[in-house]
Amino acid sequence: MSGRIDARLAELGLTLPETQAPRGNYIPVVISGRHAWVAGQVPLADGEVRYRGRVGADLSVEDGQAAARICALNILAQLKRALDGDLDRVRRIVKVGGFVACAADFSAHPQVVNGASDLFVEIFGDAGRHARFAVGAASLPLGSAVEVDAVIEID
Amino acid sequence: MSGRIDARLAELGLTLPETQAPRGNYIPVVISGRHAWVAGQVPLADGEVRYRGRVGADLSVEDGQAAARICALNILAQLKRALDGDLDRVRRIVKVGGFVACAADFSAHPQVVNGASDLFVEIFGDAGRHARFAVGAASLPLGSAVEVDAVIEID
Amino acid sequence: MSGRIDARLAELGLTLPETQAPRGNYIPVVISGRHAWVAGQVPLADGEVRYRGRVGADLSVEDGQAAARICALNILAQLKRALDGDLDRVRRIVKVGGFVACAADFSAHPQVVNGASDLFVEIFGDAGRHARFAVGAASLPLGSAVEVDAVIEID
Repeated sequence: MSGRIDARLAELGLTLPETQAPRGNYIPVVISGRHAWVAGQVPLADGEVRYRGRVGADLSVEDGQAAARICALNILAQLKRALDGDLDRVRRIVKVGGFVACAADFSAHPQVVNGASDLFVEIFGDAGRHARFAVGAASLPLGSAVEVDAVIEID
Repeated sequence: MSGRIDARLAELGLTLPETQAPRGNYIPVVISGRHAWVAGQVPLADGEVRYRGRVGADLSVEDGQAAARICALNILAQLKRALDGDLDRVRRIVKVGGFVACAADFSAHPQVVNGASDLFVEIFGDAGRHARFAVGAASLPLGSAVEVDAVIEID
Repeated sequence: MSGRIDARLAELGLTLPETQAPRGNYIPVVISGRHAWVAGQVPLADGEVRYRGRVGADLSVEDGQAAARICALNILAQLKRALDGDLDRVRRIVKVGGFVACAADFSAHPQVVNGASDLFVEIFGDAGRHARFAVGAASLPLGSAVEVDAVIEID
């Protein structure tokens, strides 16, 4: 199946990563009514966490943005799988939760989480524009620099 | 337009702040079905963060409560704008997420987040009573002491 | 009233704890449409926090799992009360949010939050399988080691 969003991904030169099995007793996506709840994704690519450590200490803001972008790609990969390959069923990205591993003096969480938000808007346009929070975490699973989850309205 | 909730705000002597443009690539409120998802708000007033630093270290619990109250006022300001001025469409505050920038030995998160919760109950009465979490964050955007988001059922 | 889930709890030798009044101006469960939003629960048993401190520093991963399990039992106790005793109305555990108080070098958040997730799956089977996030918190209310909230689809 190849639809409008698949074409948009190709136009942007983006390939969704292979989905990874969860590292805990949970599932990547639950569909409840008109919403898909996507579990928190870390910057895994090819089975490895690409960005480990604390943004603003071990990693730059740009590293953090790149990490958030990978999290968002993993969200879309999981969602596509849950929707039997059909990302055209996405009606709206509703809410994004962005957790950034960082120190007490870090303040650029919005720029970091933009790495995920920008991707959603690039792909879905206005339907990708979402509410969100961006906050600092003491640490994240597997030493990840960023974790992002999402609630998505679907057809 | 001036309704029941506007009258209640006036009765309480409250003025909603000017809404601020988001500091990232997201939007303040997404309405999906019967719910408004309001993005995390920080204690901004007149374009400045009023309470910066960590509660329990740089700031008192009372400061934290005052910060949380401003976050809640910003939630209502954003919501009012998204509802074309009509806060009477609020049916229920469903869920509040409260993040408190603090140190490892801080434990009074509930008192801090009450600064937001109390405001919702003062204004909306029983319809303002919500589920919530209150947790500690390593740090928050722009050095904010508190960040609060909300899910709100609307007519 | 005693139903299918009550029988399952008995079979597993589980007793739900007494519900505790919230330690803040919020309510434990809000039902909005087909979803119950359960407020963040800490590892309270008999009115006392059973696991205090930071997992990976003051407490082991196993302690953290035990704490998460108590949080999940409190979620179910609050939910049962909100559903007038009828846990058979649970259709699906949709989303679990897991906050772990920990230090900057901690990375086993998924294992800790499994303490809650495992319990939901033991009790509800496939209907207990949920999306979730697991993140590190600077600290949590009352010094708790873990806080867990949930969104649950109900009939």
